Amino acid sequence: MKKVTLGIDVGGTNIAFGIVDREGNVLSKSTIATPQCNDAVQYTKLISNEIQTIINKADDCEICGIGIGAPNGNYYKGTIEHAANLTIKGIVPFIQLLKEQLNCTYNISLTNDANAAAMGEMIYGGARGMRNFVMYTLGTGVGSGIIVNGDLVYGADGFAGECGHTMLVPGGRTCGCGINGHLESYCSAGGMKRTAFELLAYYNANDSLLAQKSFATLTAKDICEAALQGDKVALEVFERTGDYLARGIADTIHHLSPEAVFIFGGPTAAGELLFAPIRNNLEKYLLPVFKGKARILPSQLKLGDAAIVGASALAWKELEKNQ
Amino acid sequence: MKKVTLGIDVGGTNIAFGIVDREGNVLSKSTIATPQCNDAVQYTKLISNEIQTIINKADDCEICGIGIGAPNGNYYKGTIEHAANLTIKGIVPFIQLLKEQLNCTYNISLTNDANAAAMGEMIYGGARGMRNFVMYTLGTGVGSGIIVNGDLVYGADGFAGECGHTMLVPGGRTCGCGINGHLESYCSAGGMKRTAFELLAYYNANDSLLAQKSFATLTAKDICEAALQGDKVALEVFERTGDYLARGIADTIHHLSPEAVFIFGGPTAAGELLFAPIRNNLEKYLLPVFKGKARILPSQLKLGDAAIVGASALAWKELEKNQ
Repeated sequence: MKKVTLGIDVGGTNIAFGIVDREGNVLSKSTIATPQCNDAVQYTKLISNEIQTIINKADDCEICGIGIGAPNGNYYKGTIEHAANLTIKGIVPFIQLLKEQLNCTYNISLTNDANAAAMGEMIYGGARGMRNFVMYTLGTGVGSGIIVNGDLVYGADGFAGECGHTMLVPGGRTCGCGINGHLESYCSAGGMKRTAFELLAYYNANDSLLAQKSFATLTAKDICEAALQGDKVALEVFERTGDYLARGIADTIHHLSPEAVFIFGGPTAAGELLFAPIRNNLEKYLLPVFKGKARILPSQLKLGDAAIVGASALAWKELEKNQ
Repeated sequence: MKKVTLGIDVGGTNIAFGIVDREGNVLSKSTIATPQCNDAVQYTKLISNEIQTIINKADDCEICGIGIGAPNGNYYKGTIEHAANLTIKGIVPFIQLLKEQLNCTYNISLTNDANAAAMGEMIYGGARGMRNFVMYTLGTGVGSGIIVNGDLVYGADGFAGECGHTMLVPGGRTCGCGINGHLESYCSAGGMKRTAFELLAYYNANDSLLAQKSFATLTAKDICEAALQGDKVALEVFERTGDYLARGIADTIHHLSPEAVFIFGGPTAAGELLFAPIRNNLEKYLLPVFKGKARILPSQLKLGDAAIVGASALAWKELEKNQ
């Protein structure tokens, strides 16, 4: 029997499930719509049913554990706590409910999606063999996962690794969390759009390709495409986003001195448009002792599968810890 | 025979040695002037001679290891690297030279002074039993030591934990490292003096007790004494310093979610003058998930002995790791 783990990604819209082998190959996957009920038992029942279905189908595999990436997932307690974009409120004993419903002895572990992505990078991706690195995930928000001495940093409460909410510009842009000026409000996909509109206004750039889109419809992908066509405003959005990221990453390096910082997410599709300004600006924000050390690398995880693959990596790590 | 370790603190002016028991009691200590030669062999010979002397005197003790706190001390390599305020330049194989000269089998370990202080807090101080905390040391500079899962974070290169050089005010005050706006330039003893002079200038405060001192002579201790006498400018220096620290600590909490943040150093003698504004301001800089969690605590290490006690703690930790 092939040894595999089951990775589960809980999102606001869908929940994805994947059977993943030790090399990170997704052998099978499925998706259900995220339950929209408030009742935690009913909510988890819909998930445990799908777990049972996918496990039953994978009858040629030995399931070595289940890993779950979920918003505000608490690794220590197996709970999902006050997740803003899920309908289950308060502190939900997520793993306990699943175990009861599955009536199983599977080891089930849980953390947030950015932490799971960092684990995926370490188990299957570009961070194989690294013991100290950091992962930044760029998307609707900016998440992060921190690996120290070969394991995720969960902190005292299970919620460590919120580099997206470090201060970038004191008194700067509003951030979804309510505190102005956080990195996330500059470097998320939405942050890039805000930078684009600031620059359109500043340059009065009616001739920019970006000038044809409304604020409500412009996406980070549009900015990327415009930049690849040489649009000056779009190019400057990437320059500035790279510089913002460099400043945030410098603070992270001054805390943790990682071997590498991986960047994951949609905006990394722009390649050197994003990475060159990060690398070029980073050096000037670093103490001499850190200059030229930490590498800034694109994640090696596939964008589509990263969430389930990351979650499945969590299960492999638990297996390793228990051996 | 009583089990003890030898703690050594290498400073720019003096090198302090102390025999310390497992409870953190300093059983004996001595000091030599820091060598001022460039030759590393000659330099370390003066230190190894004193080590031999203090060990010979402690003939009723079993020396279980030696710990050293030194500027730019690299834990992994046992080297002191490019230490600005020592006369030995480049990368010095400090532990290797000491071992050769002592012709000994003692386990010798080395890190920087702020990391050693954090270890001291964990082994003997207020952090006993904690597995995730951070130590900020306020003095000529601002140092830090980070404990994750019960051990110091050394990072990929041995130099992690430079929270004093995270960005507080982009484009702000000059910092000794050459990058403007770092936390250190606001929260070190010298940073407090700079805040005092900014406030004197802003308020045109000729009646402040601090208005009697020149920039070259005003100290953080003067500011503390003036604040205790109710001087408004001095009180505002503490208010602002506490707020600056709160902002830096918030970024640290968003990275690491520690159980507590300990503050060590001369300015903590001001007690609640410093701690109240840190605690009062911190909450507004934290994500909801972190509010009311990490405690902000004064270090329990004695100011005078902290450096050798911290270094000695490093040796106890190594012993624990090797068991």
